[in-house]
Amino acid sequence: MTSSRPITYISDKNVLTTLINVFAVDPQNQEKLVKVLQEATESVIQSLPGFISANIHKSLDGTRVVNYAQWKRKEDLEAMLQNPHAREHLDECFKLSQPDPHLYEVVHIHHS
Amino acid sequence: MTSSRPITYISDKNVLTTLINVFAVDPQNQEKLVKVLQEATESVIQSLPGFISANIHKSLDGTRVVNYAQWKRKEDLEAMLQNPHAREHLDECFKLSQPDPHLYEVVHIHHS
Repeated sequence: MTSSRPITYISDKNVLTTLINVFAVDPQNQEKLVKVLQEATESVIQSLPGFISANIHKSLDGTRVVNYAQWKRKEDLEAMLQNPHAREHLDECFKLSQPDPHLYEVVHIHHS
Repeated sequence: MTSSRPITYISDKNVLTTLINVFAVDPQNQEKLVKVLQEATESVIQSLPGFISANIHKSLDGTRVVNYAQWKRKEDLEAMLQNPHAREHLDECFKLSQPDPHLYEVVHIHHS
């Protein structure tokens, strides 16, 4: 990672659409799920219209994977979910876990 | 919000500890939960040692609230959870919702 690499920042201006998808996963499948999500993002999703960022997190206890993603518009995200190539990868994620995707608005930010 | 206002960056350098707490909530309690979390953060949590940021999100469908928080060290977060004043507020959140807190590591970031 270099200092010039783009990064995601969380803003309450809400000019972007935020998707937070929490995958409940058996710890023995956590690494595999991370890999499938990474490959889906790199091979298909990140080149789709309106994609801004995806940030894959794994829980230290092994039981969750979270994708904190930003899209330009809600419609771009909905189009991705209908894309057959994206669906193929996503279906693989869904076999490995129980996803809980929701769209969000940032309502308050607090800093020290 | 001004350009000088601090913002949360998601980085895979993992120099901070990330807590993502997903609260499942009845839509009629979503606004109240957001308010309790905001008050807890402003009155107690943000002045505790090691606090970096809290970012309160509400789902557009009304059924979730997410706090994406950063702390300096895992031990600072654990100390907060034992703080009686913080606990008082958190207990109120737990009455309104089913929280699912986990600590996370950022494993991949992708940008358009």
